[in-house]
Amino acid sequence: MIETTVVEYKEVSPKDPVMIVGLPGIGLIGKLVVDHLISELKAEKIMEIFSPHLPPQVTVNADGTTKLVSNEIYFLKGNDKTPDLLLLVGDHQSATNEGHYELAGIYLDIAEKFQTKRIYTLGGYGTGKLMDVPHVLYATNNPDIIEEIKSYGPTFTEGELSGGIIGASGLILGLGELRGMEAVCIMGETSGYLVDPKSAQAVLSVLSKALNFEVDTKELEARAQEIEKIITKIKEMEETQLPKEYGAEDKYIG
Amino acid sequence: MIETTVVEYKEVSPKDPVMIVGLPGIGLIGKLVVDHLISELKAEKIMEIFSPHLPPQVTVNADGTTKLVSNEIYFLKGNDKTPDLLLLVGDHQSATNEGHYELAGIYLDIAEKFQTKRIYTLGGYGTGKLMDVPHVLYATNNPDIIEEIKSYGPTFTEGELSGGIIGASGLILGLGELRGMEAVCIMGETSGYLVDPKSAQAVLSVLSKALNFEVDTKELEARAQEIEKIITKIKEMEETQLPKEYGAEDKYIG
Amino acid sequence: MIETTVVEYKEVSPKDPVMIVGLPGIGLIGKLVVDHLISELKAEKIMEIFSPHLPPQVTVNADGTTKLVSNEIYFLKGNDKTPDLLLLVGDHQSATNEGHYELAGIYLDIAEKFQTKRIYTLGGYGTGKLMDVPHVLYATNNPDIIEEIKSYGPTFTEGELSGGIIGASGLILGLGELRGMEAVCIMGETSGYLVDPKSAQAVLSVLSKALNFEVDTKELEARAQEIEKIITKIKEMEETQLPKEYGAEDKYIG
Amino acid sequence: MIETTVVEYKEVSPKDPVMIVGLPGIGLIGKLVVDHLISELKAEKIMEIFSPHLPPQVTVNADGTTKLVSNEIYFLKGNDKTPDLLLLVGDHQSATNEGHYELAGIYLDIAEKFQTKRIYTLGGYGTGKLMDVPHVLYATNNPDIIEEIKSYGPTFTEGELSGGIIGASGLILGLGELRGMEAVCIMGETSGYLVDPKSAQAVLSVLSKALNFEVDTKELEARAQEIEKIITKIKEMEETQLPKEYGAEDKYIG
Repeated sequence: MIETTVVEYKEVSPKDPVMIVGLPGIGLIGKLVVDHLISELKAEKIMEIFSPHLPPQVTVNADGTTKLVSNEIYFLKGNDKTPDLLLLVGDHQSATNEGHYELAGIYLDIAEKFQTKRIYTLGGYGTGKLMDVPHVLYATNNPDIIEEIKSYGPTFTEGELSGGIIGASGLILGLGELRGMEAVCIMGETSGYLVDPKSAQAVLSVLSKALNFEVDTKELEARAQEIEKIITKIKEMEETQLPKEYGAEDKYIG
Repeated sequence: MIETTVVEYKEVSPKDPVMIVGLPGIGLIGKLVVDHLISELKAEKIMEIFSPHLPPQVTVNADGTTKLVSNEIYFLKGNDKTPDLLLLVGDHQSATNEGHYELAGIYLDIAEKFQTKRIYTLGGYGTGKLMDVPHVLYATNNPDIIEEIKSYGPTFTEGELSGGIIGASGLILGLGELRGMEAVCIMGETSGYLVDPKSAQAVLSVLSKALNFEVDTKELEARAQEIEKIITKIKEMEETQLPKEYGAEDKYIG
Repeated sequence: MIETTVVEYKEVSPKDPVMIVGLPGIGLIGKLVVDHLISELKAEKIMEIFSPHLPPQVTVNADGTTKLVSNEIYFLKGNDKTPDLLLLVGDHQSATNEGHYELAGIYLDIAEKFQTKRIYTLGGYGTGKLMDVPHVLYATNNPDIIEEIKSYGPTFTEGELSGGIIGASGLILGLGELRGMEAVCIMGETSGYLVDPKSAQAVLSVLSKALNFEVDTKELEARAQEIEKIITKIKEMEETQLPKEYGAEDKYIG
Repeated sequence: MIETTVVEYKEVSPKDPVMIVGLPGIGLIGKLVVDHLISELKAEKIMEIFSPHLPPQVTVNADGTTKLVSNEIYFLKGNDKTPDLLLLVGDHQSATNEGHYELAGIYLDIAEKFQTKRIYTLGGYGTGKLMDVPHVLYATNNPDIIEEIKSYGPTFTEGELSGGIIGASGLILGLGELRGMEAVCIMGETSGYLVDPKSAQAVLSVLSKALNFEVDTKELEARAQEIEKIITKIKEMEETQLPKEYGAEDKYIG
């Protein structure tokens, strides 16, 4: 595979859709929220993105079958209250610098193709402190919608996010602006030390207000623990890897 | 050399061949097994792959002659019990992210060219523990063959390989699936601390059942010790390298 | 975004302009000086450079709006004493090796397009020691102008800069020479441990003599402290990032 | 600069030339020898190679003038005893994996263009031990010339160079073989802790026998100390660099 490849499984015709992006990041907040939405609202996979810029690996399912790492697009038809939704998820972001730009451009191409009205990118804001009531922040590439976004709950105080927003959650806003596409980043405060279902819940709450949907959050906690377990295993595995001189490249098991 | 280059030394016409892949990874299990098969069964080198994505180095033979690092394809004609075999080996996997995808694609191109029926990628599963009876795991990109694979001995328990399979062993399964090509990864449990002939033996045992061949495993132990010695030397050599400010790049001796 | 993109906001016709380059480096001296000039002399933004070689992130403004990282070109019309000025600034240099060469080539393309007479690149020279009166050094790709440059104050002693000049400040001189374009690097000695307004002042002083302008330096100190605060926040944020196995890439928050 | 650029300063017509390559490596042996030959035998610069794969920097001369990093080719006309010589030197090897392959290919293009009969690449073999009488090793891509090479002094014992030869010194042999071009690597044993004039002298001695020239080695010691001083300065400078969060990229001063 020499180039990023987009596979389309099903043709859909969303009407004025909103795209929600939950790719891996701090506290895995974004991923937790969007995986949850896809599961609870039974969204349908319509597209998959494979890329030589994603890590060179397959994930392994519960039955021993494999799947090449990818980003996936799901579709959920709206109703009179909620817009049509396009949901972008995945296990990995780009492993290369140029790959980040290329993939974000492809996400925006897909959004544009469906005439997406707005993109919400979800993530975590690492504070280093455990907190009881995680605060939710916003950032946006369109000053005209700030009041509207604030009405859904999130806030922004000068000095926050002074390091910027790194990765897809930020790039989609930055590159989106160059294309005249409106985007908002919703981030839940989180310690940064663990997968954080409480912060995911706070972000989901803001999103529900913004998009007029209701979703049961009971499984969020269980889902977070499941991911926590997987992460612990990955950590243990990485500690058993042969040093580089064995011919095995640093991260590469096989 | 700007592009990956495949050199064909001999034309062969395999009939419904099976490809076995043994590139460097955890415990060097895969490499140990396939190097052993090539030697014991006297397979014939038919192709060589050079690439700017492989590390920029030559290996040095016992007589002081050199060879550019590469991956090699060997061919072994089958009989009424065993299928024709294509064996892929090498001293290194890709040193770049995109290179992994490109090389895996080329391995699949070669498999496709010879109308390969199935690909077995061999590797190690690092557990961090030394064990007396190494367990053998499988993973596959085709759920329909799971029962057949299990009949050869390997097992898979939910929760294993939760970190996925990284490198060629996994990518061949992932990219293979996109091309409709069936592939299975056979991994021997291993501590990850040393080259593991016992684990290689367990993997070879499964492969022998799957492909109906018999091969003497006496040399596996000796072969493992030889590689162990080389690795120790490489480790010592890396500790004597000049720091970067000498103009010498991190890994580069000359 | 697959390629570096230059956006032109306004057409200008500079006459024999001089370009001043202040991209991030040691002590952030160059950036401090040129940001200050742009602000005090009210220069006008005329171009912006986005690139997949820049880090994949957006900066966040005081009101929560975002901006894709970039390099910017400003223009300031001269008068009978001071030449027309083109000022190149930005928050980041290239994150990739080839990107450095590509971006420096684009800076020179822009300089050439406006028939720039000379380019000054500004930076810091790290000494590891705090000093009261920072010394200013020069380097140049044109031996014929050495006496003229010395007359503005900077000096050069054999043995200084023995490690060369790395990044845009140096590459512009090196690649500029291949195009027959004259360039000078002006560096303020600095400890390297903090953002250094005193060193920036010394560099600004040399530049003022060279280009015959006067500028109030009162705000330099305040500007340096502001950047120092942002840097401290970024450091704290980087310490709260999830380890790699969380799926979040090393530097990537979202 | 998007692509590697070769600049030709002077046309020459070597007759059956031999190329000698001294790029930076362990102990800087190769560089020391070839810089010395160029100086003592007054070779003439005929070509220069610039590349986006070389580190993005300029070197600074004793008078404050700069030069873009490069590799250089020098020419020395032979006599009835010594062949025409092409000498390849530089301050840096490639900073990228693919760049190593591309540059080695370009060195071979140049050698081929001049119908070079043989290439000697010079380097160091790190042992971690200081020694009084450094041993000289060889490796070659042509088994037919082994006896001839041994007659000049170097030896090779099985087990040496088990880690291979990394970088240009090895790649030239490996890629050269694919083009039918004969090459030999001559390496002086060295501790790896410092620039080693004694080892350089041993390598130069072998080369003198092979190519029938005599050269005064008095300056080798002085040249080694000069490089040692520069390296110490670079080390000190690297320790004063601002941490990454200052916007200054890891290695980049300006």
